[in-house]
This record gives sequence, structure tokens and C-alpha cells, in this order.
Amino acid sequence: MKRLRLGMVGGGEGSFIGGVHRIAARLDDQFELVAGAFSSSPEVAKRSGEALFIAADRCYASWQEMAEREASRPDGIEVVSIVTPNHLHVPIAKVFLQHGIHVICDKPLGVTLAEAQELAQVIDASGLQFILTHNYSALPMVREARARIANSEIGDIRAIEVEYLQDWLNDRLELTDNKQASWRGNPAMAGAGAIGDIGTHAWQLAAFVSGMEPETLRGELLTRIPGRVLDDEVYAEMRYANGARGRLWASQVAPGFENDLRLRIVGSRATISFRQQQPEILEIHPHHGNSYVVTRNGVNNHDSVRHQCRTPAGHPEGYLEGFAQIYREAAVKIRGGDAPLLPGIAAGLAGMKFIETMRESSDRGGEWVEW
Amino acid sequence: MKRLRLGMVGGGEGSFIGGVHRIAARLDDQFELVAGAFSSSPEVAKRSGEALFIAADRCYASWQEMAEREASRPDGIEVVSIVTPNHLHVPIAKVFLQHGIHVICDKPLGVTLAEAQELAQVIDASGLQFILTHNYSALPMVREARARIANSEIGDIRAIEVEYLQDWLNDRLELTDNKQASWRGNPAMAGAGAIGDIGTHAWQLAAFVSGMEPETLRGELLTRIPGRVLDDEVYAEMRYANGARGRLWASQVAPGFENDLRLRIVGSRATISFRQQQPEILEIHPHHGNSYVVTRNGVNNHDSVRHQCRTPAGHPEGYLEGFAQIYREAAVKIRGGDAPLLPGIAAGLAGMKFIETMRESSDRGGEWVEW
Amino acid sequence: MKRLRLGMVGGGEGSFIGGVHRIAARLDDQFELVAGAFSSSPEVAKRSGEALFIAADRCYASWQEMAEREASRPDGIEVVSIVTPNHLHVPIAKVFLQHGIHVICDKPLGVTLAEAQELAQVIDASGLQFILTHNYSALPMVREARARIANSEIGDIRAIEVEYLQDWLNDRLELTDNKQASWRGNPAMAGAGAIGDIGTHAWQLAAFVSGMEPETLRGELLTRIPGRVLDDEVYAEMRYANGARGRLWASQVAPGFENDLRLRIVGSRATISFRQQQPEILEIHPHHGNSYVVTRNGVNNHDSVRHQCRTPAGHPEGYLEGFAQIYREAAVKIRGGDAPLLPGIAAGLAGMKFIETMRESSDRGGEWVEW
Amino acid sequence: MKRLRLGMVGGGEGSFIGGVHRIAARLDDQFELVAGAFSSSPEVAKRSGEALFIAADRCYASWQEMAEREASRPDGIEVVSIVTPNHLHVPIAKVFLQHGIHVICDKPLGVTLAEAQELAQVIDASGLQFILTHNYSALPMVREARARIANSEIGDIRAIEVEYLQDWLNDRLELTDNKQASWRGNPAMAGAGAIGDIGTHAWQLAAFVSGMEPETLRGELLTRIPGRVLDDEVYAEMRYANGARGRLWASQVAPGFENDLRLRIVGSRATISFRQQQPEILEIHPHHGNSYVVTRNGVNNHDSVRHQCRTPAGHPEGYLEGFAQIYREAAVKIRGGDAPLLPGIAAGLAGMKFIETMRESSDRGGEWVEW
Repeated sequence: MKRLRLGMVGGGEGSFIGGVHRIAARLDDQFELVAGAFSSSPEVAKRSGEALFIAADRCYASWQEMAEREASRPDGIEVVSIVTPNHLHVPIAKVFLQHGIHVICDKPLGVTLAEAQELAQVIDASGLQFILTHNYSALPMVREARARIANSEIGDIRAIEVEYLQDWLNDRLELTDNKQASWRGNPAMAGAGAIGDIGTHAWQLAAFVSGMEPETLRGELLTRIPGRVLDDEVYAEMRYANGARGRLWASQVAPGFENDLRLRIVGSRATISFRQQQPEILEIHPHHGNSYVVTRNGVNNHDSVRHQCRTPAGHPEGYLEGFAQIYREAAVKIRGGDAPLLPGIAAGLAGMKFIETMRESSDRGGEWVEW
Repeated sequence: MKRLRLGMVGGGEGSFIGGVHRIAARLDDQFELVAGAFSSSPEVAKRSGEALFIAADRCYASWQEMAEREASRPDGIEVVSIVTPNHLHVPIAKVFLQHGIHVICDKPLGVTLAEAQELAQVIDASGLQFILTHNYSALPMVREARARIANSEIGDIRAIEVEYLQDWLNDRLELTDNKQASWRGNPAMAGAGAIGDIGTHAWQLAAFVSGMEPETLRGELLTRIPGRVLDDEVYAEMRYANGARGRLWASQVAPGFENDLRLRIVGSRATISFRQQQPEILEIHPHHGNSYVVTRNGVNNHDSVRHQCRTPAGHPEGYLEGFAQIYREAAVKIRGGDAPLLPGIAAGLAGMKFIETMRESSDRGGEWVEW
Repeated sequence: MKRLRLGMVGGGEGSFIGGVHRIAARLDDQFELVAGAFSSSPEVAKRSGEALFIAADRCYASWQEMAEREASRPDGIEVVSIVTPNHLHVPIAKVFLQHGIHVICDKPLGVTLAEAQELAQVIDASGLQFILTHNYSALPMVREARARIANSEIGDIRAIEVEYLQDWLNDRLELTDNKQASWRGNPAMAGAGAIGDIGTHAWQLAAFVSGMEPETLRGELLTRIPGRVLDDEVYAEMRYANGARGRLWASQVAPGFENDLRLRIVGSRATISFRQQQPEILEIHPHHGNSYVVTRNGVNNHDSVRHQCRTPAGHPEGYLEGFAQIYREAAVKIRGGDAPLLPGIAAGLAGMKFIETMRESSDRGGEWVEW
Repeated sequence: MKRLRLGMVGGGEGSFIGGVHRIAARLDDQFELVAGAFSSSPEVAKRSGEALFIAADRCYASWQEMAEREASRPDGIEVVSIVTPNHLHVPIAKVFLQHGIHVICDKPLGVTLAEAQELAQVIDASGLQFILTHNYSALPMVREARARIANSEIGDIRAIEVEYLQDWLNDRLELTDNKQASWRGNPAMAGAGAIGDIGTHAWQLAAFVSGMEPETLRGELLTRIPGRVLDDEVYAEMRYANGARGRLWASQVAPGFENDLRLRIVGSRATISFRQQQPEILEIHPHHGNSYVVTRNGVNNHDSVRHQCRTPAGHPEGYLEGFAQIYREAAVKIRGGDAPLLPGIAAGLAGMKFIETMRESSDRGGEWVEW
């Protein structure tokens, strides 16, 4: 067995998520980054490639050229990571898939549901793997929560509460030279604001852990900071077939919150609670029992969860390790193995549908819309 | 100065809240309990009175008799505490007020907005004090939060999140001989379920701390436990004139939650967070600053807050001390002083209006209703 | 049954602990404060008595007079609370006991082990009750910890860790008009510094919960603030017959700590952890099991613990309720009942012995001294 | 610039720390693992090398051979990681240094102070880098604590409290086939028990953050589990020149503790508190101020700390990222740069001296020994 040959589109100097993908790819040593189109600026692309020890001739000025040239090399990349602004995800993914190259793509899937559906067809036709990096759903204690719920440990689900609060856009960073903020504030590039950037994470997490999708949905997109074009806060409300209720709140303008993604699921027999900023623990609150704490790789982890841990209990894993789990499982899948919990095109379609459904509800004053 | 002569209606053997009121009345030693109609059962009333060191001739079999007899004694009670099931609050209060006796009444105010409005007129005509024991709003750190918000420390309010979760009615206790549960499960006596019992607390707390009432309101009342008549869970959503959004969630069927009343208020400059089960602290999360903890009677308490503390920082006060603060301020008001933060008929009317508005919205599928 | 007639020595204007004792006495309504010698200043004594609704003729200028006069009244006090500076505890207690009056005394017992031993003889001869208010040992979750350890739930005890940290004397408050600090800084009145004021609390708590006393003891008394006469910090180390080790750390000069009394007991099968500032919970950490939280009056409380709770789980009790438990049990004992967990002269003797043993060890450079 | 060519001794199948070193080396992509002597069993060595994508001819059966062969290759390794049991650290390090190869060595340094001193001379003569992986001292919030103390933010240090509690050896795992436990339970291979394995971490952390070494030291080594040869618990006490006192407690038999390394440093103006299991935060408790939380890469991080962060605030880094920081700085040093906080031979010597000093004190009944 050899390492998988990996290319990257985007992720040049000043990028945040590109570096995260690269660390994630390296952590378990199943990938070797050998090619890239790291920037639309040729100079930045070149400089970034050098810093990443990429051979000069595999450091491309355009991703179109990269797809073509890599596909024609005997040692060409087997998989590409797409870490560009959102509007390029789908176009780039389609081209690489059409060149026979697997795709690992950052979220959200793109900017419209329509393009997402087209991509789904391309993936389907290609027989290749498409992985969407909803990294939080790969955290061990999230997986533990999911396993316990699937195993009926909390009884019937009554309430799903998810919130994702940040404050970094409480200033108008999109007017500065902050690279993350500037494209995220541009409708043409981002497609959506908070709902796309963090709302889809919250949505996917809730669906992943609960195993449920709602029947109907309503809510509101808000823009709190004057002058901003896109939404920076979103409230959603969900009704499920079994009578459960759900609420989602995502904000990038909530002072004092750094990256506070929390999930609580209330069942008829117990409540389960997870907070991304304390990823080492899962809290279980049983009715008629003492509340207890499940620690990552501690006692009473489900086997599959224990299996994915890299360090013993009490040696904290975090964000990067969760992200790396996506890459580890991507490698398994690309090599023909099974990784049933890995998010892919279905999660991407759901995310885009969530954005569009919510826009419809918000535009209609918060009316219920069928899911 | 002498202790105020206090009577009580309700609160006999097996009562929970009656004992709480009595401790609250005693804590600061401004009241002397001298008369009571502790139960509709004469035997229970008598036994309860004896256990409370009440003179036999002031231990009444009916509250009507008690009002009349006490009003005619030179040493009759000056104030009465009403701790009966909800449906009797208003009738009893009216009679005592009409006999010239101040009233301290447990919440919710009653069972209909109409009767509450009638009571408001009686109070108005009487010139007497009427205090409603929304005890949580008397906790020092709640007062601290209120003072800081009033002082513009968090900027413009954007979000008000209040939740009040319990699990004690996750079993059908109303079918057992549990005295608290049995009348609470009876529509004729309780008037409302979770929305009345704990929803009104959450509503009052949010309004008290934020200083805001919404323009419109929507939501849903749910009955989670099959066979139960009244609601045991409620979701509300609020829109405020300044653009703020609010959400309220109250449940008596949330496994693992004991009495978990939490409030977060997000402003443009900071977020403030309080949890009733940790009443000694208030968390402040400023934008561009380190999150910090304000401790009761510790550094940087507002003067009025420090003034109400009975113990130094680090010597926990709790539920009873908060409740006693209501009684302490009631004594001030009854003696002609000022206690501007004390909840009274206005809070009672708001609570009943909240229940009725929510019912209207819930009946209409969750539509927005004007407040 | 009637309320017990209670007198108080000390506790006039400006006192902290006097007010605490009075609230504690009132909380469960088993005492009626009817007499007092509240201050050595006649004017303060008079003013304090009036504020407390004490009849003028039972408001005494001296405790000697009070003991005599009350003992000769048919309705004289049955029990006295002593809340003076430490040096007066024993002299006052002796006189009241000699007049046939039960005693509730603040800690530490006094200023020397010798006077404590004399008092023990007086108590013994009197047949009366003597209660020492080591209030922390009356907290429900402390009692729960004790019951579980007595019940062998944590296996053999290996380690006892107790610490009691405050910071209020990090400034030289004894030079100001702060009444608490000024006598505590005076060797003649306080007898000891931090070791007496809070060290004895920590010592008693560790012994109470573990059920063990050490074989040998060593440690050090420190004075951190230049110019101060008495100790303001103490470290102790203990060795127990079963091989367990103990450490005690008490400081009144630890910045940022308000009243942080913590106890951890490590056993061969589980560790148990309590923090006074979060008195509603007890944490249990079993080997090979999930850590869990026992909440006051929640599930799995020992019967006796549940019995002493005044409010349901989630309605926080705190410092005053714990203190009131001492008074509640004192009433039981004075009336001839049983209250086996109530601290009395034995705890007082142990506290004085702890101070003197530690002084000996400290003076000898920290050598081990037999207990 | 190229990646540094890295070899590894130890770390084959079943190893824990070998995998950690490899992830740490990969995380920032400054190393390429190209050679190894992963096991004393040739078969395990071969299989391990294959799984790590090591060329067959650089997968050695002995580290002596590896040192020789690699030193003679033009593309031979520049640096070796030593992740064997303790008794081999020094012998292996000496040979590689003598072959001109830099060394990154797991802790503790070895099994005797004498061999450590010999190694120090070899290092000195070699002019090469020697790095000891006291990884906890590389955590961002540990560095933040150090910077703040160095900057006099807490005033004069009064107390240093460090504890490191685990429970994994509460069972006699050394009798099972658990590879970690079996050599750690063997005096010839481990040299020391808990004091070496985790005590040295605690010691180094306290010294690193406080910037102080004690004048005298005393304590006790204990073996709690019958039949075990080495210590599994240690208590130490320290006295510093400025009057500060220190206490260290390390146990591998404390039920319910996973890897609980905590450090508190009390100063005259503030207390600072860190817990390894919550590495994202540092708590500061100022006298006369509100306690606050410094979050990793959040507001008010020291520049150097911010610089070492790989993810934004709220995206948890943990154990592996801290370990990787050692490797990142090792690369800087090997390339001739500066990394003043990196632990090396001095920390190793101090660790061995700590073990031997403590043994002396323990053997003499806990007497004070000069440091």
C-alpha cells in the first residue's frame, strides 16, 4: 500500500482552511500532497507551492490546467481537495471528477441547489468518491452520541437543539484585507452568509446525530451589521414526523462566542449534550439517574468510536483530529473500503436545500415550508 | 418598628411552596406568621397550624372566615400570603384586599386574563400592596444582569434566549398522590400546564432583565405525555421593536434537567449569561475582551446588588434567599417604602397575557400574534 | 411543642457571624431569640437589641448579667449562642452551662487546648448540650460523601486532600475598621490566624467525611503579609494508620479565591470530590466507570440526606441552609433526641489540638508530631 | 528548504508514544520519516516499517546498525527520535550523537543521574541539538501562563501547586500483555515508576511556568498496589528562595483521573490556573478583580503564543498539537534558529535529579534535602 497522491485547489498564503486540510491529510499519513493550484494569483501559487515542498512543475496557475495535466501523468494525483471560495466548489469538482480524480470538497457544497444537483449526477456517473468536509460530524464524541441514539439509549427524540455561535464578524472584517472575511462577505463568491458558512454545519450535525430529517421547516435570515449584504444570523425551527421539535440558531455576530457549536437532543428517557469547544466529553442526563460524563476513549465508548481515537483518554484531541478523521475515512473509501459515516453529496444536497428552504421561509415572513 | 403580622392561605401538610414562603418570610425576620387557613380539610388545617405554632383560634377552616375575623381583630394580620392552587389566587386576593389586607401571592396570577384584570382594579381601588412571587427576578445575579443591561454595558440587545427545563413530570405524577402534581395536572385548578407553572417565570425573567417586551409573539404548546390534559412543554418566539429576537423554551418533561432556568442576552457589545442552578455567578462575554465572572457580593457588584446580599462572596446563597428577598422588599413596600424591582400586578397581567397569547398562536398553527 | 428560647452573646452591629447564626436559628423556626448581650458597648448592645425586636429588659450590657438574670426567670433562655471573638468562647460557655443553659458556640472552640479541656469537663458535669458550629459538615452533599465512604463505596481511602482558600486578608484589613479583621488579627482575641479561622474547618471536614484521624502530623504556619502577627497560611500533612496520606492547605491570602473549601478523597475504587462553593453537587469518579454527579435531593441521595433537604433538586440551598441544619439538629438534641452527626466538644478539642500540634511541628521545622 | 530527514528508534506495533511522535513530526510537515529501528524483534520492526511506508533497506533490526548505516549515507537521517523504554534513551542518544545525528528523545531522560550527566558531556562535545519531549510545556496556554508570570502579572509567587493524576495503573496492567505497562513496571527498563513517568512532567511544568527552582525538597514515594515493585504515587514538597512553597502530587492509581495534570501558581496579586485536560483555556484570578478566562488564540494572548497556534480560537487544539510544537521548534533549532522555550538536556538533568533527590528524602523518612 502506498500513500494516496493528493492535489489541492485553493489554500494558498493567507488561507485558513487550506492549511487545515493539509494538516488533516498528513495526520494519519495516508496522503502525499504532490500538486496544487493554490491561488488564482500565479505568484502566490508559486510561493505557496514552494513553501509546501511541491515540485515546481506540479504547481499550477489554474485548476483547469492542473486537472488536465495531472490526469495525463502516470503518477498524477488520485484525489483533489477543493478549498476555494464556495462559488468554485462545484465547477472545480465537476472537472476533476470528469478527469477521473476523486474529490474532497470543503463545505458548503456550493452556491445553489441546482448546481449541487448537477454535481450529484456527475458524481453518480463517475463512480468516484466525493467527500464533503463536515468535519464536526467526525468527532469521536459526536459519533458516540450518534451511536447511543441509534441504539435507542435516550428513547424517542422529543427535541433537537443546535446552536452555532461565533463573534468574528461582529466587526465588518469583510471591509478589511482579512482574506476569510472578504470572500465570505461577497454574495457572488459565498452564495450565502452565516447560514452557509456555519448554519449548514449545525444542520448537518443535528441530522447526523439524530438520524432524522424534518417534515417542515421555517425561520428567518437576519443581517445584524448595517451595510453588510449577506445574512450574519439565522434562526430555524423544525418539525419532525415523530412529533419532535427542533431549533437551530447560528450567528457570526454573538459577542464572546468563539466557535461555539452545541447540540442537545432530548429524548423520552435521557438527554444528550455535546459542545464542540469541549470535544473530549459527552454529557448524558438520564431520567431517574445521575448525570454522567462519557470521555473520549474512556470507559464505555462504542467500539467504533474507540477505534478512531489516536490518543488515550485525557490526552485531548480536537478540531484537527476530527478533520483528519474525514481524510482517514476518505482514504479508506478511495481504496474501496467502507466508511458509512463519511459525509458526501447527500449531506451537500441537504445543506443547499436547507439554505434555499430557509430563504423561502424567511422571504415569506417565516412561514412553514415543506422539507 | 415591629414585625408585620402575616397570615397564610394554603400551605398545609404536603405543600411545597407554602413552606418556602414561610422560610422566606422568616429569613429576614420582618414577618410573624400569626394566622392561617392552611387547608380545605379542617383536620389538616388544624394539624398544620399546630406544627407552625399558630394559636388555635387563628387557625381557620376557611379563608373567607379568616379574612373576616382577622380584619376585625385589633391585632389582625396586615398581610396575607396566598399559596393555594392557581384557580383560588384571584378570589382569595380580592377578598383580603377588600378587607384591607395586603397580599403576597404565588405565581401564576390566576387562570384567566379576565380575572387578572378584575383583580388589577380591586388592587387599584384598595391602595394596598400586591406582590407576586416571581422569586427568580430577586436573585442578586439576576439583578446584577439587569443593572448592567440598563446601564448599556452590552450595547443593543439582539437576542434573548430563555429556557426553563425540568423533568419531574416526565412521569405521570398527577396520577399519584403527589400533591404538587395532582392539582397542577387538573385544568380547573391549574388553568395552564408548563406554560403557567414555569413558562411565566421564564417570561417574567426575560422581560425583567432585558427591560423589553416584544411586539409580536408566536409559538406552540405541546403535551408530550400521552393521557395528560394540560401542556407540559412550550416553545415561544418573540420579535422586539428594536429588531431583537427572542426564544423561550419551557419543559417539564426534559430528562435530566432538575430546575434549569437559564437566560442569555446577546447584545451588540457583549453577551450576558445566567443559570439559576448556579446563582452565585454571572458570566459576561465581551466582544474583544476576556470572558469574566461576576460573583455575588464579590468585586464589581452594583451597589444595590451588594446591598441585598446576606453573606460574603463564596458563601452560597440560593433559592430561599432569593425568595426571601421578595418578602424583605414586600415589608419595605408595606411599610411605605420603595422597592422598584418587586414584581406585582403588572407582572401578573403580563404572565396571563403571555399564556393567552400563546394559546391563540398555538391554536392557529403557530402564527404571529400581536403583543 | 414550643420554640426554644434562645439568647445570644455577641453579634451586634457590624458582626458577620452573629447575623448568620440568627438566620440559621430562624430558618426552621425552632428557636425564638428573646435575649442578648450583643456587644461590650452598652449603646451598641441596646441599638442591636432593638433592631432585633428584643425586649429592652432582656437586652443586657454584660453576658455575666445575662446568664444570671436569664437563669432566674421562669421564661429564661434555654440555650445561648456564643458568637464573640474566640478568646471569650470558653469563659462564656462555662458560665452559661453552669447556669443550666445549653450552648451553641462558634468555632474555633477557643484559644488554648487547656481551656478546651476544662470546658469539656464542665460540659460533662452539666449534662447539657454543647454544639460547635462547624457548619460545612452539615451540608447535604458533605453528608452524602460521608455516608458513601462509610458505606465503603470508594474502597480503602488512600488520599485525603483538603484546601480552604480565601483572599480577603491579602490586604491588611486588620489595620482598618473592618470588625471581622481587626479582632482576627489580634493574637489575644483570636488565639490563632488562618489555622484557627479556616484551618480548623478544613480539618474537621476531612475528619468528618473520611471518618479517620491521622497517626502523625507535620506542617508549617506562615505569615505572608509583612507586619502581620498571626499566621495567614498553613500547610499540613497527615499520615493515617491504613497507609493513607493527607494534605491540608488553608490560606487567607490566595488572590482570587473567595471561600474555596474543597475536599477530595481518593479511594482504591473511586474518588469523591466536593467544593463548598458548589454545594449542590458531589462528584464521584469510579475506577472503570463514568464519572457522575450526585445532586442534592436528586436521584440516589441517601435517605438521611434527602431528609434534611428543604427544597427540591435544582432549587439551590447554600451556606445558610447548611448552617441552619446545625441549629435544627441542635433543637433535636436539646429536646432529647438524637443527632449523631452534630459537631460538639469532641470536634472542638480536635480543632484546638490540631492548632497546637501544628504549632509544635512548625516550630520544629516541620517535623512529624504524633497525633 | 527541505524537510528534515528523520529516523526513529522504537515505536513499533503496540507502542503508544512512537505514534504520537510520528504524528507530531508530520503535523507541521517539517520532517520526513525515512528510517527506523522500530523494534527489537526483527519481524515486528519489518512489519512496522512497511506500515509506515519506510523503504525496506532503511528498516533496521538494530539501532546500532541504523546509526552506522544512516551516518554513512549521503541522504542519511539528520535527526533521530528515541521512543524506547527509558533504560535505552541514553545509550542510543550517545551513539547517534557520536554519529553526528541530532536527537529528539522521549522523557524521562534515562534511569540514573550519572548517565544523564555523561550524556550532557556528549551533547556538549557534539555541538548537536538534543531535545527532550516535555510536551506539556509546549502547550499554548502553558506558554501564556509562563509569559504572564515572567511579566510580573501575578506579583511575587507564593505557592506552586502541581498535580498529575491518572488511574490506568490502578490495576496491575504490568502483569498483562499491555506493552506500555509491562516495561513501565520493570525497574530495569523504567528506572522509576510514577515519579519518572509523570512526576518529571509535573516537575518540569512547574519549573517552566514559574521560572523557579527550589532550594530544598522533601517527600515520599509510595507503592499502593500490592506486589508492584516501583512507586505508583509520589508526594513532594518544595521551598523556594523567595519564601514560596510548592507541592507536587503524582499518582497513577487515582481512580477516575485519566491524565489530569493541573498547575496553579498563587502570586501576591493574582492566581493562575491551568489544566491539561482543558488546554484551550487559562484562568486568571486577580485580587480585587473579576476572574477571567484567556482562550487560546483569543483576545490578549501574548504574541509568541498566538504565533504558535494553528487554528483560530474555539477550534480546539490538544495534546498532539502541543507535542507537534516540540517538533516544530526542534526543526527550527536543527536549522540553526532560535527556540528558547524548547526543553533539552537541562530539563533532563533536572528530572533525573528530582527522582534521585526524592528517593533520598523518601528513604530518610521525608527529610528535607538540598536541591
